[in-house]
Amino acid sequence: MKTVTCTAPVNIAVIKYWGKRDTELILPTNSSLSVTLSQDILHSKTTISAAKEYTQDRLWLNGKEEDITKNKRMHNCFRETRAIRKAMEDKAASEGKPIEPLSTYHLHVCSENNFPTAAGLASSASGLAALVFTLAQLFELTISTSEVSRIARQGSGSACRSLFGGFVAWEMGQKEDGSDSVAVQVAPESHWPELEALICVVSDAKKGTSSTAGMQSTIKTSTLMNERINQIVPARMEAMKKAILERDFQTFAELTMRDSNQFHAVCLDTYPPIFYMNDTSRAIIQLIHEYNASSPDGKLKAAYTYDAGPNAVIYASKEHMPEIIQLIGHYFPSNKELSEFFADPYNVAQGTKLGQDFIPKTHTNFNEKVIPVQPAGSVSRLLHTKVHDGPRVLSEADSLLNAEGLPKRLA
Amino acid sequence: MKTVTCTAPVNIAVIKYWGKRDTELILPTNSSLSVTLSQDILHSKTTISAAKEYTQDRLWLNGKEEDITKNKRMHNCFRETRAIRKAMEDKAASEGKPIEPLSTYHLHVCSENNFPTAAGLASSASGLAALVFTLAQLFELTISTSEVSRIARQGSGSACRSLFGGFVAWEMGQKEDGSDSVAVQVAPESHWPELEALICVVSDAKKGTSSTAGMQSTIKTSTLMNERINQIVPARMEAMKKAILERDFQTFAELTMRDSNQFHAVCLDTYPPIFYMNDTSRAIIQLIHEYNASSPDGKLKAAYTYDAGPNAVIYASKEHMPEIIQLIGHYFPSNKELSEFFADPYNVAQGTKLGQDFIPKTHTNFNEKVIPVQPAGSVSRLLHTKVHDGPRVLSEADSLLNAEGLPKRLA
Repeated sequence: MKTVTCTAPVNIAVIKYWGKRDTELILPTNSSLSVTLSQDILHSKTTISAAKEYTQDRLWLNGKEEDITKNKRMHNCFRETRAIRKAMEDKAASEGKPIEPLSTYHLHVCSENNFPTAAGLASSASGLAALVFTLAQLFELTISTSEVSRIARQGSGSACRSLFGGFVAWEMGQKEDGSDSVAVQVAPESHWPELEALICVVSDAKKGTSSTAGMQSTIKTSTLMNERINQIVPARMEAMKKAILERDFQTFAELTMRDSNQFHAVCLDTYPPIFYMNDTSRAIIQLIHEYNASSPDGKLKAAYTYDAGPNAVIYASKEHMPEIIQLIGHYFPSNKELSEFFADPYNVAQGTKLGQDFIPKTHTNFNEKVIPVQPAGSVSRLLHTKVHDGPRVLSEADSLLNAEGLPKRLA
Repeated sequence: MKTVTCTAPVNIAVIKYWGKRDTELILPTNSSLSVTLSQDILHSKTTISAAKEYTQDRLWLNGKEEDITKNKRMHNCFRETRAIRKAMEDKAASEGKPIEPLSTYHLHVCSENNFPTAAGLASSASGLAALVFTLAQLFELTISTSEVSRIARQGSGSACRSLFGGFVAWEMGQKEDGSDSVAVQVAPESHWPELEALICVVSDAKKGTSSTAGMQSTIKTSTLMNERINQIVPARMEAMKKAILERDFQTFAELTMRDSNQFHAVCLDTYPPIFYMNDTSRAIIQLIHEYNASSPDGKLKAAYTYDAGPNAVIYASKEHMPEIIQLIGHYFPSNKELSEFFADPYNVAQGTKLGQDFIPKTHTNFNEKVIPVQPAGSVSRLLHTKVHDGPRVLSEADSLLNAEGLPKRLA
């Protein structure tokens, strides 16, 4: 039996992916660009073991066995990685140095997220990235990370961007077979380590449209979408890469906010319209614009972005994060214990009462009434995190499977 | 002293006006099209008197005197109508048949809306239309209604569409002086008298961006706006006119909803973004799409549209209005007396308890859980109205001014 355990991070796009030109191969209608967030706070962890003795492929997700036969996307990832392993095995055999025929073994996969799915944070990107990265490790595939990302893309589009740390572009590619639709690292996390993120988990009763269905509906019905795909995103991709390479937070922030808003604009231009943001999401946007507008030197200090849900991710420099946390904590008070509400691994709130000193001291023109203080619990959690590394290989001790290849923990 | 009293209606656009190419002359970046709503429910009423004895122009708005010297838009309307009157006076004098030199007299203007400004319903269109229409009557101007609309346009852009009943296009025009930027009647109210409207007044704590400032911000910053102006609206104007002339509710409804959503999409694509709809507005949208989707013959039965605020206007045929009122009454319950909540001049709710029979009987696939029943008072008022006529000239008895030219009522 051979067993490997890895983790993969969450990524949050600053130039958004929305729409497939090929739904089978998961080829996007435009390139996208994301920031990889620290696995200390959010990650998917996957253990895979291969054994001659296994009688079937099996999958446990967050402690519950799932019917793997119906999981087409996972099958795509198995098929692709096994095929590469098979070619390696054949080549090794032909050279008279045979390797273990792992490609013929059944697999046991056990995967967990360290954040509750209920938090409304997309787990498919980190989950599929962890799966494919672990498969590549298990099979000892001698392919580049971008090649690994090509396979992960076929599991879940944005998963391809979770194969790298730092700043990652998913280049849409032009080929019909999707071989050039891969992720590439624009810059590693060490290039701009001051960049941090605050995730505001927004409570919402409504279940939004699934992004898989939603994006194709936008492609079919929005009359503004072509302009975005053909003209706007290509220019923004270039500008965003340049901003990252130059650590130009002003351009980075403005483009991030503009692209988030435009993504939600084309959702609204869809027929019937798709809504992901709610009144709490909008209140956060208004607060961040007021915070930026009252900045003493006129410079932007924070940038919000929203994916297919109401949660805000606020990017900011390390130096401004404490006051941003105070600001959010004041206008979006919690009804829970601080430790339940705020994940603070970098101890920025140490010794302060959250939300008390809410007006940034240097912002003399800050309009306190920009939004009313919201009902307690409108934001249910705050997670403080930062730009960080790509998938990690863990030790045997971290395995989610026991010596029999069965989960150590079941739900 | 010469005195005239008139009323002018509210109009609600189905192809939206958003953006000026000339802010002085109020020339729009695209044509627009609206439906004129009944003055029985909503109107602005204006009395103007001209007298040699008056020492200055004076204005009373909803019972309060306003400083007219600061009201540039009203001055534009005075100047334009007085100039035409002056030319008529000069011509009459040159022909030896002099007429009263009204163009030289000061004016007393008294204006009221029969709906509370607090209701959040735009009153500038009906208000300026009433002003200019009354001036044209007072001065006995021998010009076409489209010419009157050209003057009203300089008071408040969309006021030009309130000069006609029925279905009204504001043709953007091409000339720099704005002489071809006027309203024309696409069809009178008698062409499609079955068309009715339900105004849902949505409670909102936030004061939205003024439309005057908002539209120019969109023009300057939205990268999707050019596509809308140059490609989408011109095609929609033609399609909408055809739909109205053919009384084709299916096309009318789909275009109305799409154009409302696209207007709000370009607001969201503005930097910083502009929001007018709130969670209640969005719940109404979702309800109407579910109502349409479950329609037994697959046909659309209702169309929502939103202006620069959270209030919904729902267009529907007379035959479906009772069930739409029941539906809204169920999901958006009131905390007020029925007569306070629901303005029902056509007695459609007679004998029923509002909101009780909320599932349309013929809609077998209606998903009752499409939205939760909303907190009482989320919709504060329902106004049932219909497509109706243009400005009306009232009798002397209806005058808002007394024999001394002063308001009969003060606030």
